[in-house]
Amino acid sequence: MLEPAEEAAGMDGLEDGGESAQNWKLTLAYDGTDFHGWQLQPEKATVQGELAAAIERVTGERVLPQGSGRTDAGVHALGQVASFAMHAPIPPANLARALNRTLPAAIRILQAEHAPAEFHARHSAVAKTYTYRLFRRDVCPPFLARYVCAVHGALDVDAMRSAAAAVLGEHDFSSFAATDPDRAQRIAQQEANNVRCITRSEWDEPESGLLVYTVSGSGFLHHMVRNLVGTFLEVGRGQRSPQGTAELLRIRNRSAAGATAPARGLFLHSVTYLE
Amino acid sequence: MLEPAEEAAGMDGLEDGGESAQNWKLTLAYDGTDFHGWQLQPEKATVQGELAAAIERVTGERVLPQGSGRTDAGVHALGQVASFAMHAPIPPANLARALNRTLPAAIRILQAEHAPAEFHARHSAVAKTYTYRLFRRDVCPPFLARYVCAVHGALDVDAMRSAAAAVLGEHDFSSFAATDPDRAQRIAQQEANNVRCITRSEWDEPESGLLVYTVSGSGFLHHMVRNLVGTFLEVGRGQRSPQGTAELLRIRNRSAAGATAPARGLFLHSVTYLE
Repeated sequence: MLEPAEEAAGMDGLEDGGESAQNWKLTLAYDGTDFHGWQLQPEKATVQGELAAAIERVTGERVLPQGSGRTDAGVHALGQVASFAMHAPIPPANLARALNRTLPAAIRILQAEHAPAEFHARHSAVAKTYTYRLFRRDVCPPFLARYVCAVHGALDVDAMRSAAAAVLGEHDFSSFAATDPDRAQRIAQQEANNVRCITRSEWDEPESGLLVYTVSGSGFLHHMVRNLVGTFLEVGRGQRSPQGTAELLRIRNRSAAGATAPARGLFLHSVTYLE
Repeated sequence: MLEPAEEAAGMDGLEDGGESAQNWKLTLAYDGTDFHGWQLQPEKATVQGELAAAIERVTGERVLPQGSGRTDAGVHALGQVASFAMHAPIPPANLARALNRTLPAAIRILQAEHAPAEFHARHSAVAKTYTYRLFRRDVCPPFLARYVCAVHGALDVDAMRSAAAAVLGEHDFSSFAATDPDRAQRIAQQEANNVRCITRSEWDEPESGLLVYTVSGSGFLHHMVRNLVGTFLEVGRGQRSPQGTAELLRIRNRSAAGATAPARGLFLHSVTYLE
């Protein structure tokens, strides 16, 4: 389905006199600290808005790049993917270089490539991986403060690993989904489906003082990774048992699980597509 | 000599009824990106201003912490040192912890300690070390962009090393000093002394893509490190010969040397005091 902005720009390849648009795939990294999230908003700096403006400056075409998913304000990306169609016949490496010259340094295009016409960054994604970084030493260096959640006090990492393993597989993650104002209505309409399949869920200590959660899955509900991390932290502090995690999934009630961990520790690591 | 703010707060230990003030030494790190430099300025966020405000919130005392030197807007510190005197009888570890709770995350107290009455962060310093970080790969990760200067194209690192070695020892660094509006007057008053002694000046590649200049010396003129780096970069690009560096020192003319490298790559690494 075409986005309104694409339609306005004649991006469908049918209504523009036969000249067909090229579909593009961009892979990008960003520091989300100073953006109001991914999604375009009037009068606010957002990653999607900066990207659309940069594409227009470089090619003269107005398109709305579609992300693999929205990231919230303060959430970072190492490998976000965006897709859009446009007519400008620019070689991929040149587009990447030209966009990086005009984008803020907090957003970098890692790769620009042609994509098949049916490719869509969100609809074509088959899996995503997120990481969440906890910093455990007393004083968090100012150069890390934007990219970690600093935690104090002892943590039982084995218990956190055990709780993380309990969410592997296919489950209804309603207990870990942000409260959605439209949810009651959606449930009434039988549209709510909070079942997701998690294929990786583990805690690692890549270096002293840093504790990193990595989670891969078929898809993620709003705030799901941050709610999982907040719950695992309560397990690490001894406020919950790791064995209780399965029960949390079963009862499908957001108020049963832990607090939402802060945005700044979260990175969209990568998005997976079928070749 | 007392600063005005210290005088106003009765910090001299004589005019306050005999209760003598304790002298303090703070070691701190900061991300300078979002500050208008070290020095207190009305209506602007500065590191000295944030620190003074935090000390007042914690202890109720108004003091003006003296830095080992000013850092410009955008320059970072791994080990800046500040000194001040105050009456609050707070244990050093508690002061550090309390300040870190109230300071922005971009400023962290690494150590707070009592200091002898005669200690002054600037006057007592015997040497300083700065580092400057160049990033050489095509695309600079957004998470590094605040902390490096990204450079493109080939660099002759051996030539840069040779030029860096040429500034070792005692020299007049006028060619590398920022133009000072008061300088003509100071020269007339025979107060200008741009002679400094450099004891370390070298380029290293601690990891692929990162090129780091480290310089230690008895003291540094305004913009001196950034002007040295800008000049060494021109040597690396083949725009100057490394052999020309000695001549640059000899002619003592700012316009003969290279451009000023951007603030964001520069870190005040550490300040040395006699025990």
